[in-house]
Amino acid sequence: MRFATLSNGAPDGTLIVVSRDAQLCLPATGIADTLQQAIERWDAVEAPLCALAARLEQGEGAPLDHNRLLAPLPRAWQWLDGSAFPQHGELMQKAFGLPPIETDRPLMYQGLSDRFLSGHADVPLPSEDDGIDFEGEYGVITDAVPMGTPASDALHHVKLLLLINDWSLRAIAPIEMKTGFGWVQAKPACSVAPFAVTPDELGEAWQDGRVHLPLEVTLNGQWFGHPHGGEMAFGFHDLIAHAARTRDLVAGTIIGSGTVSNADYASVGSCCLSERRAIEMIATGKPETPFLHFGSHVRMEARGGSFGAIDQVVTAPDH
Amino acid sequence: MRFATLSNGAPDGTLIVVSRDAQLCLPATGIADTLQQAIERWDAVEAPLCALAARLEQGEGAPLDHNRLLAPLPRAWQWLDGSAFPQHGELMQKAFGLPPIETDRPLMYQGLSDRFLSGHADVPLPSEDDGIDFEGEYGVITDAVPMGTPASDALHHVKLLLLINDWSLRAIAPIEMKTGFGWVQAKPACSVAPFAVTPDELGEAWQDGRVHLPLEVTLNGQWFGHPHGGEMAFGFHDLIAHAARTRDLVAGTIIGSGTVSNADYASVGSCCLSERRAIEMIATGKPETPFLHFGSHVRMEARGGSFGAIDQVVTAPDH
Repeated sequence: MRFATLSNGAPDGTLIVVSRDAQLCLPATGIADTLQQAIERWDAVEAPLCALAARLEQGEGAPLDHNRLLAPLPRAWQWLDGSAFPQHGELMQKAFGLPPIETDRPLMYQGLSDRFLSGHADVPLPSEDDGIDFEGEYGVITDAVPMGTPASDALHHVKLLLLINDWSLRAIAPIEMKTGFGWVQAKPACSVAPFAVTPDELGEAWQDGRVHLPLEVTLNGQWFGHPHGGEMAFGFHDLIAHAARTRDLVAGTIIGSGTVSNADYASVGSCCLSERRAIEMIATGKPETPFLHFGSHVRMEARGGSFGAIDQVVTAPDH
Repeated sequence: MRFATLSNGAPDGTLIVVSRDAQLCLPATGIADTLQQAIERWDAVEAPLCALAARLEQGEGAPLDHNRLLAPLPRAWQWLDGSAFPQHGELMQKAFGLPPIETDRPLMYQGLSDRFLSGHADVPLPSEDDGIDFEGEYGVITDAVPMGTPASDALHHVKLLLLINDWSLRAIAPIEMKTGFGWVQAKPACSVAPFAVTPDELGEAWQDGRVHLPLEVTLNGQWFGHPHGGEMAFGFHDLIAHAARTRDLVAGTIIGSGTVSNADYASVGSCCLSERRAIEMIATGKPETPFLHFGSHVRMEARGGSFGAIDQVVTAPDH
């Protein structure tokens, strides 16, 4: 199944089920008004939502207005972002001039969750001097996960998969990182592609708690990278178990993979500017690709298009 | 005005206004069903809520059942915790064996906000081996704060003040801190004292964006400390401006002071075990006070009692 959230003036919008070809939709009214409600009552609503999806595939439904779509969860009670691609960590340490992070545990921070931008909304940010960067990654939405859930029992808590752009401000990130407190200023609101999909929608591409799909990124219309999601050192089940070690996870928790990054970066490129800059530093001694400007245009889509596209422009705050 | 939230089976409870003597209450029904709703519509609801408070002082209202009180905001869209007391930072570096944090900016991390425990609920935590500790601190609830709000314009966004126990797991904290990603496992849900109060309730004790009140802590019935809230290196207006540098703050954002701590710790004691342990390390070379056990009893109250008391017991998870 494929879900989206239609703007209706309220913060959480209206839950809709979307056809496989992304042309038609049916509201989930009477089953679950919002995606958060659906996640909270998944066992009860899954079958009636499946029935809606079946009707869509028979041609029922209204035309989908992509311009009215919000993020699938326009706000969430919890957003925990991992950094599970070792190649990303290695290049970021180069980019930031930081020592290697010595840990055998998953890396994870708690991020801003009170708003997620739609995949087509302008992204207002305060200053071009902050080193504006994108980070393409996959994410999962979980139902309620009890404290102490082991990785071996975590995958069935994954109800939906997402494609996320974790906007990052690189002039601030290493300053905050050095305090040990994680990021506040360096991590403004993320953007999310329009469709949240059940894992079965990806078929063989959902394996080992990983999304085995290339994430295709263009910057101002030019190819930027297409690394695939399979190279996570920890799968989403490991990330969920890590997050739930000392807390119950609330239904509707979003957990991110961290920037998709591959060892073969020379061929597949990157999902963030900082990695390309680090690769340039390794090759030539200095970064050449600038960070984003107001007006820069970023597009991300997983191959196959299941999540729809993130396709947006960075703007000045009073845009 | 003094607010509390009464359990009604729903996650956000029912907003009530409480009399100055904490004996009587009136529901805010018809004005704002929940504290989150009140914060979102503060300008519209402040006067009618004041009228309820006036009726309470004339003896109207129902007896307040303290056992039915939740945290004032049982969940929040955002919890950003500062660390604004320099003495705490200095002692924690000693306790953790970490180098000094070199920064001239406020320290702040994004914390778990999907649940705040009531001040009297048991606190289930997974293991005594995690170094269970308390952290007494003050906090503020803001209305919506636009991105880029300067400190000079931030104080009027403070609508309510809180007393918070930021539960911390010290065996995990330095491991997470060394990654630079901040804390996930080391920071389970906080507890909050029952009453959220408007700044005017504190009279002279609310000054310079600081709560100038001793925070009195007992552990298992024994005095533990009573440092006061005036020694913040940055006031709450500075913390709000820091938080809003690159993001709009959602109405209902909670911002914490970090553990209350004074330079004169030898006289006033501490608000967390780690500080006492660091003081012991300085004095004798090794910590002597153990971390908490299941069954340990922590009580916190600001002098004068405006916030009511946090008074609770740590338990095993299946308690």
